[in-house]
Amino acid sequence: MSAHQIEHLIQLLSRLPGLGPRSARRDVLFLMDKKESQLLPLIQAMQDVAEHVKVCPVCGNMDTEVPCHICSNSKRDGSQICVVEDVADLWALERAGLFKGHYHVLGGVLSALDGVGPDELKIDSLMARVQSGNVQEVILALPATVDGQTTVHYLAERLAKYPVKITTLSRGVPLGGELDYLDDGTIQMAFKSRRDV
Amino acid sequence: MSAHQIEHLIQLLSRLPGLGPRSARRDVLFLMDKKESQLLPLIQAMQDVAEHVKVCPVCGNMDTEVPCHICSNSKRDGSQICVVEDVADLWALERAGLFKGHYHVLGGVLSALDGVGPDELKIDSLMARVQSGNVQEVILALPATVDGQTTVHYLAERLAKYPVKITTLSRGVPLGGELDYLDDGTIQMAFKSRRDV
Repeated sequence: MSAHQIEHLIQLLSRLPGLGPRSARRDVLFLMDKKESQLLPLIQAMQDVAEHVKVCPVCGNMDTEVPCHICSNSKRDGSQICVVEDVADLWALERAGLFKGHYHVLGGVLSALDGVGPDELKIDSLMARVQSGNVQEVILALPATVDGQTTVHYLAERLAKYPVKITTLSRGVPLGGELDYLDDGTIQMAFKSRRDV
Repeated sequence: MSAHQIEHLIQLLSRLPGLGPRSARRDVLFLMDKKESQLLPLIQAMQDVAEHVKVCPVCGNMDTEVPCHICSNSKRDGSQICVVEDVADLWALERAGLFKGHYHVLGGVLSALDGVGPDELKIDSLMARVQSGNVQEVILALPATVDGQTTVHYLAERLAKYPVKITTLSRGVPLGGELDYLDDGTIQMAFKSRRDV
């Protein structure tokens, strides 16, 4: 149909989350059409990332510095470690811009269905960080799913032997959330943990 | 937040049709996570396309050969030219696999709103191809939109002086189409151009 180089590129692009064969085909046409302004800069940007971005050996963040700019920032508070599922969640918290401590990327959550046990996650290195020093609080910022909460309980148990505060994110009605669009579980949680005005 | 190389790549990716900032961010994390199996092959595939793919000077298709493999295929029928809006439509017809003639990519359709006049489209080169030779049929496979049909009428008028048959795609109920899910316009058209069983 079209040249095999084009087909190959469509195939690779269509594996990206959020793209299918149809949108990948459209994207390849878009890129070929705008070779100078889009395709060549995109190649260059990908090469830069492939060359310079490394996984931080301390927290698991991805950055061009090793250790990452969060771990090496002396203005951030090393006594707080926020445990997240993956780098996307770390970035989401950084965008929110209120946490000034350090992170720990687990690399997933425990899942019996997907066969993810404690050994598949960066749990030992978390324990080592907590044991080694001046950590005072571990914030378990894991997803509000069954697997996420299983992981929260597992980690809380493992961390219980250290003299650290263990916290997790509050649950409730999200900002701008209208009650009749919310699921029953969220409403029940928000109702049970209601607070004084 | 994250390294400027990562931000730059997210920005470029989010300009692709079908991707926004959120999905681009997810895709960059996916690519960095699978550097060897995804990011590096994708860079290579893009370089191949950037280097080898050219626009066919005859029909406007994109291919590694010049003229493209359709124009240079002696088994295809040069007496039929199928006029399409863009390369995506050419590919769609090739996937359907029933047309064995040549193509002509217009590069758009006439649009008063978007300020696209005849000079913005590859109409002169179409006329030159029809004039020059053995063309017997011009199939106007343009979209069934107002602009597409305006372009069909405009081209039919310009082509009227040549001894060629001018055709366009039939309109009607699409395969698998259920009547109560179709728009009124399609039902009206399909009803008016009803045929004997």
